[in-house]
Amino acid sequence: MTKVVLIGAGNLAWHLGRRLYACGLHIAQVYNRSLSPAQALAVDLNARAVTNLEEIEKAAHLYVLAVSDGAILEVARRLATKLSERLIVHTSGATPSAALKPYFQRHGVFYPLQTFTKGCEVNFSEIPICVYAAQKKDEDFLEQSGRLISEKVYRINDQERSILHVAAVFANNFSNHCFQMGYHTLQQENLPFELLTPLIQETARKIIGRSPLQMQTGPAARNDLNTVKRHLDYLEKIQSPYAEIYRRLSESINPLLMNNEE
Amino acid sequence: MTKVVLIGAGNLAWHLGRRLYACGLHIAQVYNRSLSPAQALAVDLNARAVTNLEEIEKAAHLYVLAVSDGAILEVARRLATKLSERLIVHTSGATPSAALKPYFQRHGVFYPLQTFTKGCEVNFSEIPICVYAAQKKDEDFLEQSGRLISEKVYRINDQERSILHVAAVFANNFSNHCFQMGYHTLQQENLPFELLTPLIQETARKIIGRSPLQMQTGPAARNDLNTVKRHLDYLEKIQSPYAEIYRRLSESINPLLMNNEE
Repeated sequence: MTKVVLIGAGNLAWHLGRRLYACGLHIAQVYNRSLSPAQALAVDLNARAVTNLEEIEKAAHLYVLAVSDGAILEVARRLATKLSERLIVHTSGATPSAALKPYFQRHGVFYPLQTFTKGCEVNFSEIPICVYAAQKKDEDFLEQSGRLISEKVYRINDQERSILHVAAVFANNFSNHCFQMGYHTLQQENLPFELLTPLIQETARKIIGRSPLQMQTGPAARNDLNTVKRHLDYLEKIQSPYAEIYRRLSESINPLLMNNEE
Repeated sequence: MTKVVLIGAGNLAWHLGRRLYACGLHIAQVYNRSLSPAQALAVDLNARAVTNLEEIEKAAHLYVLAVSDGAILEVARRLATKLSERLIVHTSGATPSAALKPYFQRHGVFYPLQTFTKGCEVNFSEIPICVYAAQKKDEDFLEQSGRLISEKVYRINDQERSILHVAAVFANNFSNHCFQMGYHTLQQENLPFELLTPLIQETARKIIGRSPLQMQTGPAARNDLNTVKRHLDYLEKIQSPYAEIYRRLSESINPLLMNNEE
């Protein structure tokens, strides 16, 4: 049975750990600096909670570094001597695998491309798992492990993963900000945000299997400069912090839009 | 039984007509300039297709103008004399009810706030229906009719609806453009868009019942200027059309971000 040590007990560790365990892997230990989160997760995973990196055992098949980007290097450095022969992966879309290279020959990445919130269940079988390892045998192993927990496993190298991260910022962080700008606009008139949530779900649903460009609607896309200007006037009138970005996004959708202004 | 005349046979007429019919209303006629779309929809609704405004009957309880924004005024003008006593509503989020006022005393709006694609079924019972009528009795009638087809009916006046439209541009059109920018970025590396679609669905799902501001993640939100700069360098290097808007959106999420640059 594959024996895994989980390093970290945050959002990602919570979700990934539970999924690995549910799919039959043996989680030997959960490490976290503070005991309480480690223990809370370890209990669910039938694992042992440890708070000292010295206590981490040497004989696991896979060490999963599910810590924040900022902590990866430091934890890797401290585990280097002990686990120099072992396969160790981080779970970050933003950090190159090369960050682990100075410390571990058998390094890699096991990156579930999803946004996780502790306590909110997600459908793991549809989450893309992006795997990479420096050694082919390890990458095969990561791919097999990925297939245990998801139907979608991709081999993604460092260069590809860094681009994927840029794309995810657009598709996740920036779209969420657009939702926020809609929310803020409604607040100005005391209108409830639930007016927009079905529209938002459908906007997200419509792009499955399609190019979003095909799905683009709205005043900017249809060259309706009058509506764009009316919206801008309104946003400026109420001194919305989002007037300028409304204009920029409209221009980004339709670069010729403002040129039509005479 | 409530008798409805449906004017228009486009996306919205297709969805709204079918829902009204399925919920027990009698659709007497479907008007469209060209016969074929009118007929295709009329058959489904057990209605009569007409292509001449002269043929529209006078005795319906409700006339639903489901035509493009640009056509509302012209169609209203041409129906004015004939239907001057009747309740006529348009279905647009972008046009004030006042557009109908010169022609009909009993005018109003029946606006389902959703993005519709012909042939793609939507869950109508969750779609917010925004109603307004110049006369209280008519507004009561529109609210009752709305409740037949959806659980969510709101009385929304012209001012509120115009703000709702601005908010919907942010939440729908601009978020779709963010999906497109993610798509485009992946294309540069021949990475499949399906890598991002689960993330997009979850991003949309997470804001139900929450403020999107609480859900905001990513390099800009966490003040991670290094990552933002690395992404900008990459986008500039590949001459992405979206480098500038990446910077603007990051600043919009975190106005102090670039100030940290020293």
